[in-house]
Amino acid sequence: MTNPSLPNMTSRPRIIIVGGVAGGASAAARARRLSEDAEIILIERGPDVSFANCGLPYHIGGEIPDRSQLAVQTPAGLRAILNIEVRTRTEATAIDPERKTLRIRQLDDDTEDTLSFDSLILAPGASPIRPPLPGIEDPRIMTLRNLQDMDRIKEAAARSRTIAIIGAGFIGLEMAEQLSAPGKMVHLIELQPQVLPQLDPEMARPLAIELRNRGIDLHLADGITSFSSGEDAVSACLASGTTVEASLIVLCIGVQPENSLAKAAGLALGARGHVVVDQWQQTSVPGIYAVGDACETADPILCKRSAIPLGGPANRQGRTAADHIFRGDKALPYPGSLGTAIVRVFDLAAGVVGWTGKRLEAEGVSFQSVVVNAPDHAAYYPGHSPVDLKLLWSPEDGRILGAQAVGRAGIDKRLDIIATALRGRLTIDDLCHLELAYAPPFGSAKDVVNFAGFAACNIRDGLLHPIPSLDDAFGQIIDVRPPFMVEKQPFPGIPNIPFSQLRKRLDELDREQPVFTICQMGKTSYQAARVLANRGFDARSILGGANHLLD
Amino acid sequence: MTNPSLPNMTSRPRIIIVGGVAGGASAAARARRLSEDAEIILIERGPDVSFANCGLPYHIGGEIPDRSQLAVQTPAGLRAILNIEVRTRTEATAIDPERKTLRIRQLDDDTEDTLSFDSLILAPGASPIRPPLPGIEDPRIMTLRNLQDMDRIKEAAARSRTIAIIGAGFIGLEMAEQLSAPGKMVHLIELQPQVLPQLDPEMARPLAIELRNRGIDLHLADGITSFSSGEDAVSACLASGTTVEASLIVLCIGVQPENSLAKAAGLALGARGHVVVDQWQQTSVPGIYAVGDACETADPILCKRSAIPLGGPANRQGRTAADHIFRGDKALPYPGSLGTAIVRVFDLAAGVVGWTGKRLEAEGVSFQSVVVNAPDHAAYYPGHSPVDLKLLWSPEDGRILGAQAVGRAGIDKRLDIIATALRGRLTIDDLCHLELAYAPPFGSAKDVVNFAGFAACNIRDGLLHPIPSLDDAFGQIIDVRPPFMVEKQPFPGIPNIPFSQLRKRLDELDREQPVFTICQMGKTSYQAARVLANRGFDARSILGGANHLLD
Repeated sequence: MTNPSLPNMTSRPRIIIVGGVAGGASAAARARRLSEDAEIILIERGPDVSFANCGLPYHIGGEIPDRSQLAVQTPAGLRAILNIEVRTRTEATAIDPERKTLRIRQLDDDTEDTLSFDSLILAPGASPIRPPLPGIEDPRIMTLRNLQDMDRIKEAAARSRTIAIIGAGFIGLEMAEQLSAPGKMVHLIELQPQVLPQLDPEMARPLAIELRNRGIDLHLADGITSFSSGEDAVSACLASGTTVEASLIVLCIGVQPENSLAKAAGLALGARGHVVVDQWQQTSVPGIYAVGDACETADPILCKRSAIPLGGPANRQGRTAADHIFRGDKALPYPGSLGTAIVRVFDLAAGVVGWTGKRLEAEGVSFQSVVVNAPDHAAYYPGHSPVDLKLLWSPEDGRILGAQAVGRAGIDKRLDIIATALRGRLTIDDLCHLELAYAPPFGSAKDVVNFAGFAACNIRDGLLHPIPSLDDAFGQIIDVRPPFMVEKQPFPGIPNIPFSQLRKRLDELDREQPVFTICQMGKTSYQAARVLANRGFDARSILGGANHLLD
Repeated sequence: MTNPSLPNMTSRPRIIIVGGVAGGASAAARARRLSEDAEIILIERGPDVSFANCGLPYHIGGEIPDRSQLAVQTPAGLRAILNIEVRTRTEATAIDPERKTLRIRQLDDDTEDTLSFDSLILAPGASPIRPPLPGIEDPRIMTLRNLQDMDRIKEAAARSRTIAIIGAGFIGLEMAEQLSAPGKMVHLIELQPQVLPQLDPEMARPLAIELRNRGIDLHLADGITSFSSGEDAVSACLASGTTVEASLIVLCIGVQPENSLAKAAGLALGARGHVVVDQWQQTSVPGIYAVGDACETADPILCKRSAIPLGGPANRQGRTAADHIFRGDKALPYPGSLGTAIVRVFDLAAGVVGWTGKRLEAEGVSFQSVVVNAPDHAAYYPGHSPVDLKLLWSPEDGRILGAQAVGRAGIDKRLDIIATALRGRLTIDDLCHLELAYAPPFGSAKDVVNFAGFAACNIRDGLLHPIPSLDDAFGQIIDVRPPFMVEKQPFPGIPNIPFSQLRKRLDELDREQPVFTICQMGKTSYQAARVLANRGFDARSILGGANHLLD
């Protein structure tokens, strides 16, 4: 026998999986690899299994022209390759945790059945929120969850000259980008005063500029109060009094966990209705697991609970549940989700990992942060573009709490570096000395991640006193850029003392007052503040510079 | 005073830095930011400071058309911005460690001088090796270290129809790529039987294919025995008997540390002649530092000594030395170098971080490894290309020892993820649950790094018994690919049992003999081996599949 690490199961165990997309399909595949004996039954309400959820907007927009590309696996494929029983168009209606049975109903003919199980894995996902607003029932107001929704939206979009997207989060931004086309008017409506509310405002700002440059009509800080149905269009009435008419409206305002089955079975639920699981994705009832968007997991950074409806975590949670069924406590625990996420918005990409300033403030957790800016690869090599990176850390021990990045290139790379650093519980000191791949087409001798570490350590060590924006500066402010830059993008009313002349012109400054320095990207202003501080001034550098503070 | 963290130096300290490029320039900049009082003198033998070393090949090839882009800073710029004294064309000739003095000579007029110092930072770099072979003195045999070398090579290359590059390491490959042009014949000669000997052979193999496809004439496992000078060309005579004629020969066979100054001063040197330093880059004499290519640093993975002649480490070491001068033991120690390196070879990129199998074997360190292959971003989204990733880890505790990657896209990202993981001393278990940024254009729900973690854990847990190549398989070998793939790229003589039919055709196999499975990329063969193992066979999956084993 070559399989010593697996338990010998005497009878043939039955595993039922409810939900056949990311987490459910991963669980099925891993379970089969761990056991040829197990009877594995996959119950799926829809007609499809294992489709590429995250690809749906890109078929709508035409970037993935072949719809069949989105079917990562078919029911027939799963049967052939994994030797599992796949029942599509079948709904799980009730769990009996005592008897370990699952009630199911075939949607096409309404026949019902009861299946016993040894282990049950719930992977029902989450459904798009449809708020109970007047007029919401108009069929031209759509949501996107599965291939059928996708087909409907794609067809409607082809006919529509005016489209409104409600919600400027990750999916809303993808939809705005993909639905934007010559001759079409796309409105993007967001309740928060910024796009991508999952980011801190200053990091989302470049996305709003990009969207507007691409002709998207942004309505920020504005909520929907009602819809009214006309013959040719639906009118969305906004709190501001604005009315947006569109022949297609796509709701992208978030998802809620599919928890009815779990709730009725008495499984413990979290504050927001997610199924509570342990480190092996096991619910409050042993032998019943939950994975993916429906469950709540640990936040490994601050040891709080969080629910992250994303494909990566779902897949790995499914694998964890299957591992625990066959390997028990020898299975690798799921370490919690960091919430790493990224979105492309035309030529820009933006993303987040870990905690944002907004969430830390809301939780009352003390933190420090800095925004740095450096080219994605060597500035002397053609084709570079700036990466803006915001780093957040704990002032107590320097441990990284999160990061956000925005730019044209290399955003995924920086998020992944910080995601790995978070997994290793690294500190701002560690970031200084990350040794990242450097050749001119790929990186720099000092990467923007190193700079974030340097800046953070400088703040901790009292070498950099950053001021987040011009609004926080008062009294003496000096622009230390070379005159040609000042001419191009002036800060009105702020005197210019170019850095190269600063040491000779110190007598123009009042030593009794703090001096605030500003430049293009926040680097020269730091250098100038160091010169001033080392010469006895109370000097503070304004972060980000003209790149962030001026349009 | 706003500068509490810096010591109050009573007199004006003098810091002398020898060498004004990566490490020396970084040290100067950081020193000035920490102190306006210090007198900082930068001694540089050449006419330039702070030029972009790593960009030299790309100006030769024309990708960086503007030569002035390579001058990151000029002597005048450094004076203006950092208020330091820059002495170019000046050679440091002797250190008196007792008296803390440095003897210098102005190269243009041979005048000499003696400077006293409080701290001395040696950043002399390393010089290209020119082996003492017959005929080596021909001026058409060049090396590349500075802007003047670059100009000479660029000029000679423009006139040459046949060019030979000796050494297929990182710089040799960059030169081969950059010098390749229509109408030119480029020979690349390497003593080792593979290109990029810094990688394990199987990971360098795709580069050799790419080079040959691009018309480069590769001479592997062949060394130079002598050169002979003709009127129109130099002939390089190889050990194999081949003679390569070229009107330009570029030697890229490595560098040796510039240690004469340190050696004469009695500073401790390592086995290969590098200056030994502590975690603050301090040499055996307190107050004298060494940074960059000339020094030997710690290897943080196996706690051995190593010397890594790369720009990233040099820059950060320079910063560390300056920090230690002004902040003493409060300075952040340099944590050692991982040797992260990357090279682009036409459409491919390849790189390494940490230890390779070759180096671990040579050191007698036990390790395990696996090569996995997955698309750089979601396979259902257009434009993806495969990433080959080799992971090496310690069988004792699962700690990562190193990685190598090769492919068309996303290579730098995977190296950076592993570099960060190495800094955090992560294990193969941690890689399974790295939560990397996923949206279709940027990544996958399960990244190739996750797959490497999965495969490594499967090996440790006895679920995967990998066989590195077809040569290690014997007896029963089955190709489990679908027939259409087998037809395209057959393994001659190996029977095909498609994975989807495997469970039904088990009686075609001999249960008393091991079964070796092979497929296209090593994934289906793993799944097939799991089916067989779970059904009582001694089953082993051949890594890499046709993608690696067939041309």
